[in-house]
Amino acid sequence: MLKFSPSKGHTVFFENSPRIISSAAICGSKESTGIIGSFADITLQDDMYGESTFEKAECKMLSNVISLAIEKAGFKQTDVDLLLSGDLLNQIISASFAARDFDFPFLGVYSACSTMSESILLGAMMVNAGYVKNAVAATGSHFASAERQYRYPLELGCTRPPQAQWTVTGAGGCLITNADQANDRGVKIVNGTMGKVCDFGVTDVNNMGAAMAPAAADTIMQHFKDTGTEPTDYDMILTGDLGALGSRILKDLTWEKGYDISEMHVDCGEIIYKVIEDEFQGGSGAGCSATVLNSYILSKMGAGLYKRILFAATGALLSTVSSGQGESIPCISHAVQLEV
Amino acid sequence: MLKFSPSKGHTVFFENSPRIISSAAICGSKESTGIIGSFADITLQDDMYGESTFEKAECKMLSNVISLAIEKAGFKQTDVDLLLSGDLLNQIISASFAARDFDFPFLGVYSACSTMSESILLGAMMVNAGYVKNAVAATGSHFASAERQYRYPLELGCTRPPQAQWTVTGAGGCLITNADQANDRGVKIVNGTMGKVCDFGVTDVNNMGAAMAPAAADTIMQHFKDTGTEPTDYDMILTGDLGALGSRILKDLTWEKGYDISEMHVDCGEIIYKVIEDEFQGGSGAGCSATVLNSYILSKMGAGLYKRILFAATGALLSTVSSGQGESIPCISHAVQLEV
Repeated sequence: MLKFSPSKGHTVFFENSPRIISSAAICGSKESTGIIGSFADITLQDDMYGESTFEKAECKMLSNVISLAIEKAGFKQTDVDLLLSGDLLNQIISASFAARDFDFPFLGVYSACSTMSESILLGAMMVNAGYVKNAVAATGSHFASAERQYRYPLELGCTRPPQAQWTVTGAGGCLITNADQANDRGVKIVNGTMGKVCDFGVTDVNNMGAAMAPAAADTIMQHFKDTGTEPTDYDMILTGDLGALGSRILKDLTWEKGYDISEMHVDCGEIIYKVIEDEFQGGSGAGCSATVLNSYILSKMGAGLYKRILFAATGALLSTVSSGQGESIPCISHAVQLEV
Repeated sequence: MLKFSPSKGHTVFFENSPRIISSAAICGSKESTGIIGSFADITLQDDMYGESTFEKAECKMLSNVISLAIEKAGFKQTDVDLLLSGDLLNQIISASFAARDFDFPFLGVYSACSTMSESILLGAMMVNAGYVKNAVAATGSHFASAERQYRYPLELGCTRPPQAQWTVTGAGGCLITNADQANDRGVKIVNGTMGKVCDFGVTDVNNMGAAMAPAAADTIMQHFKDTGTEPTDYDMILTGDLGALGSRILKDLTWEKGYDISEMHVDCGEIIYKVIEDEFQGGSGAGCSATVLNSYILSKMGAGLYKRILFAATGALLSTVSSGQGESIPCISHAVQLEV
C-alpha cells in the first residue's frame, strides 16, 4: 500500500522507505592509494582502462559500475526499470553512451558534481511513488577528460594554483529499490532536499570550493529547517567536493546562522586523497562523491558505524563559455538523508 | 487523496491528473514568420534580445518564458516549488543561469532535443506523487549559440548539406499543477513513457533526423503497447525535430511493425518554418518542440481542436568530442500523453 509522501519547504519525505541495496565503485590508480582504495570494487592500474581515449575510459567505468551495482543486488539487468545518470562532459556523453549498453529507460540529469545526490534523490522519488521498482543512480568523472575539457591540454603541463582541486578518476553507482524487494537489506533513503541555485559572485574557476560552499550551506540549513533536525542528529554531514578551503567556508557560513557542523562535517574531496602537494585542496568532480559514497561510506553504514548521514553533494554550474564571457559561478547542492 | 499510480512497461500512469495550466513561448525573428509567429508570447526583432552574446540571449529567453508561464497561470513566483530544465549548451548553462533568477529549487535535466518531454514527464511525476504542487518545465535553444558550439563559427559562412536542419531560436515552458489547483483548467497529463537509448549506427552529424527516428519509433510503439492504444486513438502524434527525412523514416519504421501513423503524425521541425532552401529538412533544437508545443499546440488543445496528443520529442545524445572520436549517435525519446 502506497503511503502519501508529504513535502515541506524544499524537502520531500519518503514514507515508503526506498532503499539503496547495493553500490559499486571503480577508481583510478591515484585514487586507489587513498581511503577508498580497499573499498572500491575495481581499482585501475592504468587510467585508460584499455580504451583508446580518456572519454571512452570514463564511459566504461560508468557502464561497469551500473552493471556491478545490479549484479551485487542479486538482480539481472531485466529487473531494472530505470537509469538516472549524468556527468561532467559536454552533453553528458559518458552517461548517454553508458546508457546505450542497457535495455532499460534512461533519464539524463545534470548538476555537475551534485549529480550523485540529484540522481539518488530522483531515484528515491520514483521508487517511493511506485513509478518504478528498481532504479540505478550513477555518475563518474575522469581527471584527464575533465582537465582537457575545462582547463588545459594535459600536454601543456600547466601549473596549478594553491586553491585548485584534482578531478577524481572514478565512477560510483547504486541500486535503489522499494521496501518489499529490499527485504530489510540496505540503507533507507528517508527524505531528500532539492537545492536551489546560489551564486555569491565567485569568478575564479580554480576556486570551486568557495563558489560551492554557499549552495551547500543553503541546502543543509533548509534541510534542518524542513525536517526539524539539527547537526547533532547526524553522525555525518557529508559534502561532495568542497575541498579543504570550501569546507572551512561552509562551516563558517552555517556557524553564522547558528548551526555548528564542525564536529560531524566530512567532505569527500578532503578525504579521498592523502593530500600531498599536487591536489592542494583535495579531490573534485562528479566521481569524487560518487566513489566515496558508493564504496567507503555505504560500506561503513552497512557495518553500522554510521547510522544517519546527510549526503549533500555540490555542483558548480559553469562552463568554459560562461566563464569566458565573464560570468560568475552559479552553484547547487541536492541532499538526501540516509539511515540504517 | 493521493491515488496509486501503476506503471506498465516503460509507461507511468498519472491517476491524480497533473495538468498543464499555462504555457509560454518566445521565438526568434526567423521563427516568427512561421506557424508559431502569431501564437508566441514574444517574437524577437533582433535575436540578440538586447544581450551582448548569443548564449546570454538564449538564457534570457528561457528565464522569461519561465516568468511568463508562472504569470499566465495567475501564480506568483513564491507559489512555484520546482523548475525542471535543461538545454543544448555545454553544462546546460542556459538552464542553470536562468534558474539563478528564481528562488525555488532546480533539477537540471539533459536529453538534448527531448528535454521538453523529459521535463514535462518528470514534472508530472512530481506533481502526481504530491512531492510538489507547482512545477515549471522549460527549455530552449538559439541558432547562433548551437551553430558555433556544435558546427562552425557563423563567420565562416559554411554551406549546409541537404539533410541538415536549422536550430530554432526560441524557448518554451509550461506550468504543471495538481488537479485541485487547476480547478478544471488546462490540459491533462495522462501518462508518460520513459525512453531508452537507441543507436542505429548513424554517424552523420548533419543527419539527426535519421539518427533519432529509431528512438522515436521505439518509444511510440512502447507507448502503444503499454497503454493498449493504437495510432487512431490519437488526434496527433507529435515528434520534436525529426525533420522531413526523419519523419519519413519514423513512418516507415512504425509501419513495418504494424502501426500506420501517417495520418496523425506531425513533426514540430517540419511545420515550424515555411520550408525554403536554407532550412532543408526543417527546424531542430530543444527550442523547436518547446516553442511549437507551448504556443501553437497547447493553444489549439485549449480551443478543443485536438483532444488527445502523444508528444514524443527526440534527442540526439552526441557531442563534438564523441563524433570526433568516431562514435555513432545514440538517441532517445521521452513521451507524454496529453488530453483535454
